[in-house]
Parts: sequence; C-alpha cells; structure tokens
Amino acid sequence: MEYKIKSRIWIEADNHVLLGEGRVRLLRTINETGSLTKAAKRLEMSYKKAWTLIDAVNKSAKKPVVITSIGGQGGGGAKVTEHGLKLIQVFEEINKNCWNHLDEQLDKIKTL
Amino acid sequence: MEYKIKSRIWIEADNHVLLGEGRVRLLRTINETGSLTKAAKRLEMSYKKAWTLIDAVNKSAKKPVVITSIGGQGGGGAKVTEHGLKLIQVFEEINKNCWNHLDEQLDKIKTL
Repeated sequence: MEYKIKSRIWIEADNHVLLGEGRVRLLRTINETGSLTKAAKRLEMSYKKAWTLIDAVNKSAKKPVVITSIGGQGGGGAKVTEHGLKLIQVFEEINKNCWNHLDEQLDKIKTL
Repeated sequence: MEYKIKSRIWIEADNHVLLGEGRVRLLRTINETGSLTKAAKRLEMSYKKAWTLIDAVNKSAKKPVVITSIGGQGGGGAKVTEHGLKLIQVFEEINKNCWNHLDEQLDKIKTL
C-alpha cells in the first residue's frame, strides 16, 4: 500500500488569514504579469475575487504586499512589494519544510 | 503582530483519502459511544454521512477500521478495531509533530 501524508498550511496575522496556497499563487501570478486583471484571467478567477483576496492580504499584512496603480500609459498595473516577495519566499520555504517533515514520518504508518 | 502557522493534514492510501481530521474525530466518537448512530448525533452529522465516511475509511484501509453489528440485544453497535485505534494514534502524533514543526518556523515570518 502506498501511503502519503498531505498538508495545507496557512499563515494568520492577528487571527486573520494572511497567506494560504491560493493567495500565494495569485501573488506569484501578479508578480509575473504585473497586472491584477491578467493574473485573475490566467487563474480563471473573477477580477472581483482577485481584488478581494489582495485587499484581504494587504489589510492583514504589516506592510503593503501589492501596490496597484490605476490608468496611465498602458493601463493600470499591480506590483508585488519587496515585503510581499519575502512573504511568498518564506511561505514556500515553510511549506516545503512541512512536506519534508511529513515525509519523514511515513514509516509510522507503513509499519501499521 | 501575532503570527500563527496553521495546518491541516490528511493521509492517503493508494491515492484515496484514508484519514483526515473529520474522520479521526468521527472514529474517536464511535470509540467513545460504541455506536455509529450516537457518534453521528453527537457530531451533528447525518447517519448517512457518518456511514459514508466510515465506509470510505474501511475501503481505503489495509485492514478494517470499524466493525459494525446490526440488531441484537441493545441494538446494533460499532467498534473501532485495534488497527483503527493505532491509525488514530499515529495520525494525532503526526499532526502534533507537524504543529510543533511549524511553530519552530515562526521566527522566519516574525523577522520580516
């Protein structure tokens, strides 16, 4: 029998969800596309949903995570801040460490 | 700012979900009450839902996890097997280890 231990993690700040896998995916896509509209489209998410998620992240975070600009040459844009990039990096590091930690415990189940 | 890293884990066997927090809670309650009906009631879950969950656990597991008997003196009963009790114990151990592991990584976020 092939066993796996799976996990989902999320980070809370002052009891509000700050980051989970979905939010991190959205932030990464904003960082790649430079646009909330393009990121939402790529992830097959409504603009409203994407905006609401980013608003929640910004409101929960110590410092802004995404900065948006409206209009201007080439239309509005969205930019993940330095603080946001660090948060993504730390989230992914913790997530990978968690997976490794769980893999190390597989023997506890296999021997049952 | 107070940060927390939260997690949910689940165990898969041959790509089917074997155990997650909800299933473990149900198994523990069956073990305490000796009855699927009573366990479902205590967890405010329909009997059908509880039965479906337990059927899925039994079908995914290497050996039976819950054995049910129908009728007889005092009505039918449900019993968590030795294998089931070991699975619960290991799940909770892995879950606690995971929480501790994540707590140890909080500093990575706090310093951002």
